[in-house]
Amino acid sequence: MTEQWQLDPDRALPADPTTRDLARTIYRHAATLPLVSMHGHVDVDLFADNQAFGDPAELLITPDHYLVRMLVSQGYRHAELGVPHRDRDSGGDPVERDPRAIWRRFCENWHLFRGTPTRYWLEHELAEIFELPAPPSAKNADVLYDQLAETLQRADFRPLALLDRMNVQILATTDSALSDLSSHGRLARQLGPARIVPTFRPDSLVHVGHHAWTAEVDRLAEVSGVDTGDYQGFLAALRQRRRAFIDAGARATDHGHLTADTTPLPTASAERIYRDALAGNVSPADTEAFAAHMLFQMAEMSAEDGLVMQLHPGVLRNHSGEIYRQHGPDQGFDVPVRVEFTRSLRPLLEKFGLSDRFRCILFTTDETVYSRELAPLAGAYPSVRLGAPWWFLDSPEQMRRFRESAVETAGFYNTSGFVDDTRAFASIPARHDLSRRIDAGYLAKLVAEARLGMDEAMDTMVDLAHRLALTAYAAPHD
Amino acid sequence: MTEQWQLDPDRALPADPTTRDLARTIYRHAATLPLVSMHGHVDVDLFADNQAFGDPAELLITPDHYLVRMLVSQGYRHAELGVPHRDRDSGGDPVERDPRAIWRRFCENWHLFRGTPTRYWLEHELAEIFELPAPPSAKNADVLYDQLAETLQRADFRPLALLDRMNVQILATTDSALSDLSSHGRLARQLGPARIVPTFRPDSLVHVGHHAWTAEVDRLAEVSGVDTGDYQGFLAALRQRRRAFIDAGARATDHGHLTADTTPLPTASAERIYRDALAGNVSPADTEAFAAHMLFQMAEMSAEDGLVMQLHPGVLRNHSGEIYRQHGPDQGFDVPVRVEFTRSLRPLLEKFGLSDRFRCILFTTDETVYSRELAPLAGAYPSVRLGAPWWFLDSPEQMRRFRESAVETAGFYNTSGFVDDTRAFASIPARHDLSRRIDAGYLAKLVAEARLGMDEAMDTMVDLAHRLALTAYAAPHD
Amino acid sequence: MTEQWQLDPDRALPADPTTRDLARTIYRHAATLPLVSMHGHVDVDLFADNQAFGDPAELLITPDHYLVRMLVSQGYRHAELGVPHRDRDSGGDPVERDPRAIWRRFCENWHLFRGTPTRYWLEHELAEIFELPAPPSAKNADVLYDQLAETLQRADFRPLALLDRMNVQILATTDSALSDLSSHGRLARQLGPARIVPTFRPDSLVHVGHHAWTAEVDRLAEVSGVDTGDYQGFLAALRQRRRAFIDAGARATDHGHLTADTTPLPTASAERIYRDALAGNVSPADTEAFAAHMLFQMAEMSAEDGLVMQLHPGVLRNHSGEIYRQHGPDQGFDVPVRVEFTRSLRPLLEKFGLSDRFRCILFTTDETVYSRELAPLAGAYPSVRLGAPWWFLDSPEQMRRFRESAVETAGFYNTSGFVDDTRAFASIPARHDLSRRIDAGYLAKLVAEARLGMDEAMDTMVDLAHRLALTAYAAPHD
Repeated sequence: MTEQWQLDPDRALPADPTTRDLARTIYRHAATLPLVSMHGHVDVDLFADNQAFGDPAELLITPDHYLVRMLVSQGYRHAELGVPHRDRDSGGDPVERDPRAIWRRFCENWHLFRGTPTRYWLEHELAEIFELPAPPSAKNADVLYDQLAETLQRADFRPLALLDRMNVQILATTDSALSDLSSHGRLARQLGPARIVPTFRPDSLVHVGHHAWTAEVDRLAEVSGVDTGDYQGFLAALRQRRRAFIDAGARATDHGHLTADTTPLPTASAERIYRDALAGNVSPADTEAFAAHMLFQMAEMSAEDGLVMQLHPGVLRNHSGEIYRQHGPDQGFDVPVRVEFTRSLRPLLEKFGLSDRFRCILFTTDETVYSRELAPLAGAYPSVRLGAPWWFLDSPEQMRRFRESAVETAGFYNTSGFVDDTRAFASIPARHDLSRRIDAGYLAKLVAEARLGMDEAMDTMVDLAHRLALTAYAAPHD
Repeated sequence: MTEQWQLDPDRALPADPTTRDLARTIYRHAATLPLVSMHGHVDVDLFADNQAFGDPAELLITPDHYLVRMLVSQGYRHAELGVPHRDRDSGGDPVERDPRAIWRRFCENWHLFRGTPTRYWLEHELAEIFELPAPPSAKNADVLYDQLAETLQRADFRPLALLDRMNVQILATTDSALSDLSSHGRLARQLGPARIVPTFRPDSLVHVGHHAWTAEVDRLAEVSGVDTGDYQGFLAALRQRRRAFIDAGARATDHGHLTADTTPLPTASAERIYRDALAGNVSPADTEAFAAHMLFQMAEMSAEDGLVMQLHPGVLRNHSGEIYRQHGPDQGFDVPVRVEFTRSLRPLLEKFGLSDRFRCILFTTDETVYSRELAPLAGAYPSVRLGAPWWFLDSPEQMRRFRESAVETAGFYNTSGFVDDTRAFASIPARHDLSRRIDAGYLAKLVAEARLGMDEAMDTMVDLAHRLALTAYAAPHD
Repeated sequence: MTEQWQLDPDRALPADPTTRDLARTIYRHAATLPLVSMHGHVDVDLFADNQAFGDPAELLITPDHYLVRMLVSQGYRHAELGVPHRDRDSGGDPVERDPRAIWRRFCENWHLFRGTPTRYWLEHELAEIFELPAPPSAKNADVLYDQLAETLQRADFRPLALLDRMNVQILATTDSALSDLSSHGRLARQLGPARIVPTFRPDSLVHVGHHAWTAEVDRLAEVSGVDTGDYQGFLAALRQRRRAFIDAGARATDHGHLTADTTPLPTASAERIYRDALAGNVSPADTEAFAAHMLFQMAEMSAEDGLVMQLHPGVLRNHSGEIYRQHGPDQGFDVPVRVEFTRSLRPLLEKFGLSDRFRCILFTTDETVYSRELAPLAGAYPSVRLGAPWWFLDSPEQMRRFRESAVETAGFYNTSGFVDDTRAFASIPARHDLSRRIDAGYLAKLVAEARLGMDEAMDTMVDLAHRLALTAYAAPHD
């Protein structure tokens, strides 16, 4: 008879018994609704290939930058956690090749994750999906490793099987604008057209100062079949790729910029900067101006083709040059900066904000803008939706604070529904479930304080858990 | 026997039973105290004319920018909600003329207001003041409309009767510095001198870059009888108007600026900018500098004449040019921006901050400044009071956060008491009542956590609900 | 039989009974652990001299800028509270010489402190340490004064006796880099080497624009025996002082700058600015650049000698010039400004951030940076720890918000443990105790919401109350 690790069915619900009872009822009303995952970063080839996961470290540790950075913050090196070097010449520490050693390092440091969402998600994954018998510890690291490694070889734990088991209704991946979308095509034929869909991400093409930009533009010409030798060709090629994405089921675009600036340039200026950039001779100021200009262009194209525009500014990427040189991007060293929306979005909203053919969803890692800027904007402009708490803010306290800061001005119905935004495939159900629990707790508080009726709370719960994400990511003029 | 809509007597009190019991006792101690409404935007002519309200839409929907913007954010047009065009040439959608159709649109979308203070206030108004039988819905829209329309014709629902029924002790309106105050004069003769008093708002006169500025300055000369042909005359005319306001019972001035900058200019510079502005030739930089300079001048005049100076910076007005062109200002498209007080107020506080003849009350829509800037300033300078949570922040969660952010550094006694700041006359009691409930909940938490005695909490409750507003808006050297 | 003033043993624990029960158990587990006070401002000579405190006002009121500013904010003058003039020529009000009169002013205004941490700390001090029979009031002011004055004369209430009674394991003072450390030497001989230790604070030496700077540099030469006639000598002299501090037991340096900028200058530029400053001819821009440069230099020295680097930017000192002219610095008129860490610290962290020989602890009075900047930095860089809520933020609501904002991203183990940061010696136990209660409440909430096990919460509690401060302030490469 094996041990059983049972998670508390009331976890993450409010402690006060009156509110908890209400929250439990509200939560259960939505607990088993299918998952709508409209913004995430799982690699489409995981599903297209549908191979078994290699080992526990490869599945759960090495690629999870939340988890890696926490171990690094306490003295481990990326390489000790199996993170590969960016290239042969990047130097640095020898990379750990033994996944069991990596797994042990993680288990021995389980206490570092106390109070973090990573801990919460992992508990859910390990107990509910992989049915491990107990939380990680120095003592049981090997036993857990063996059991998990064995589970991962089972056919019913391959990616597509997990997708069913996780009750995922639709999953949007994030894809370079240069993707040929062949994997999505294959999956659409296998699973139907609206199960795994791409998202159009053109960031690498609009930041003209990046060292690899000209190579990207060349590839854009190749993939699109449109000459990108001048600015007009560049726009035409982007339009072609957007159409290809739409044909492959895409609902949205995704834009990660340092600021939310959307000031358009006169066409002649945009053409000039584009020319300079192709010649490898572009100033930082022009780079910034062009990025802002391109957000405006992307909005214009969205107003034409109906792709929902997602914008998430305000993170300074690769804060540590050393980590970037050794291991490349997305290694836990991206750090938010203050962000501004009210003035930055004004050019875009002046032009498209009142249109019923345009929709944008705004994300932030700077919680100070919820009440000051985003809720007032989303609570006025018909085109604006306020995205779910994102990245560093996708956690119990932050999700509560998001509701407490945004709903009073924006209402529930100008928010986008939950997005999991994750590279960690197995954490998707945990993230959606946690979001449902926190929302249930917030609604329960409103009921307990007689600010909302119970029937309304139940109805709102289904909206937050399911309906809003579907409608927010539908083409606005559908 | 008609249906009854009973609001929960414990609404907006904390859910935890221990804290709720305390909160209920504390709240009841202050629940029936008269309302002191020292900062609001109800039109004085509403009372001077004392006519019956026209219809439910005219009373509750069309003029309420909180409500209109929420419906607009979900796809309605201002015109569909009866909002008139700014002028004959402003173009745009045809304006709905049928108040019943407007009312229906509102009722059908009652769910949009879930979790918002608008919903909370409307419940209070509809159930407690207008005694409607049930919350709005698509089904009962017509029944409610008819009952409400009938009620509005009753003599005891005319503005002055409502003022008594609402238990309003004193109501301050906000009035252009150009107002001749004749309506206030009439009301003073009718109601006594301290029931409905004006507030001096000179914004249109100090923003020299505004297209209508010279016309305003001409009218200032007319109303004041002082030649405004040069800067010294302008100051003299303003002094004259302030005296007229004081004679009409005014307690305070009100200043809405984009920033809190209070840097004075050398007199020669102020005179030069004033001349340039009269000649219609003033730069944006000079416009900003002059506005800051005039805040300093207003403080100087306040230190002379005892008018309390209210400052509320940080809102970018008319974010959507299109809405402004069609419908004018105050249509729900004002959006806050980050605001700074510490450095901006320094010139003013260096000069008047320690004076016992000067008082200013600071408001913000940027909640980040409570703990960082406003509480430290109000907790040190004897002239500074911290205003109530204002506009977007006048809501349950925000009022809680205000107390949680400001009191520990500023104490309760450097806050101003509640101000309702509303154009929606019928919402005044709801707003005061909600504020009392939230304050009672906060005080109850302090008692429950043994951070305050129950007798102290009861005493503080009366201060917050009643006494502080009276003393904050009394001339400081009285 | 005398009256007894009993504080509620559950004070500052959560109100909800379920959570309170858990919190009580967790708190008691750490309640009697010795105090580790690694960042404070008690004058070392208080212990070196070990004289009885003069009178109640001198002990509790006049030197406590939290308390003085609150009374000033309601109309008292500094001089009425016994605050001395800065010098003979500073002018201003006559200074109150009667400590009993000062004490009465305080007692009569006890209500001003409702809801503030000052009130909470004073209750603890008066009831638990000085065993007064009741809270202060106008009525009992004289009785309390007499009893307190008598107590202060007792041998067991002298500073060193109190240090034992307070269960202080180690106390770090803050000392000018120019201190000869003789008092510390004397105390080390008397108490052992690690009971009262100095902290190296070089602020007056790195702000070259300050009017007293050249005098400071001359004294640096004297104390260090190193010629400070040029920049290299200046650095060498600073190194000498750091070694002297380390020899006297110092664990850390302390840096209060207006911004967190750490951009290094080319050596030639630093040398040039240093020369200009010695010649009394330095621009504000150079002053700022040199201060930033010196933070970088201090980090370099810390990476060499192991002193932990404490940085607390973002307070505009002496906001009121008038108060500063009359009474000097630290009089309650320092006001926070917005602060930025992500970009500002990048130069420092690029160079030393991944080093295992460097540690910095970051403090803020701008709570908006916890989730946006500090937690992401501390949750990635191994050298960064996030300091306890500091100054204006050292209060129940703020300590809760700190945990709710920082832990989810940084974890508990990248925070520094509590620091009391106080000049008010008698408030040290109250501050530590309050911190333990709030942390217990936060941990109890995690347990009640099944986000943490009870055994883990108990273990974490001991870390937060005791272990983390010891390890954070140990040399990183020990």
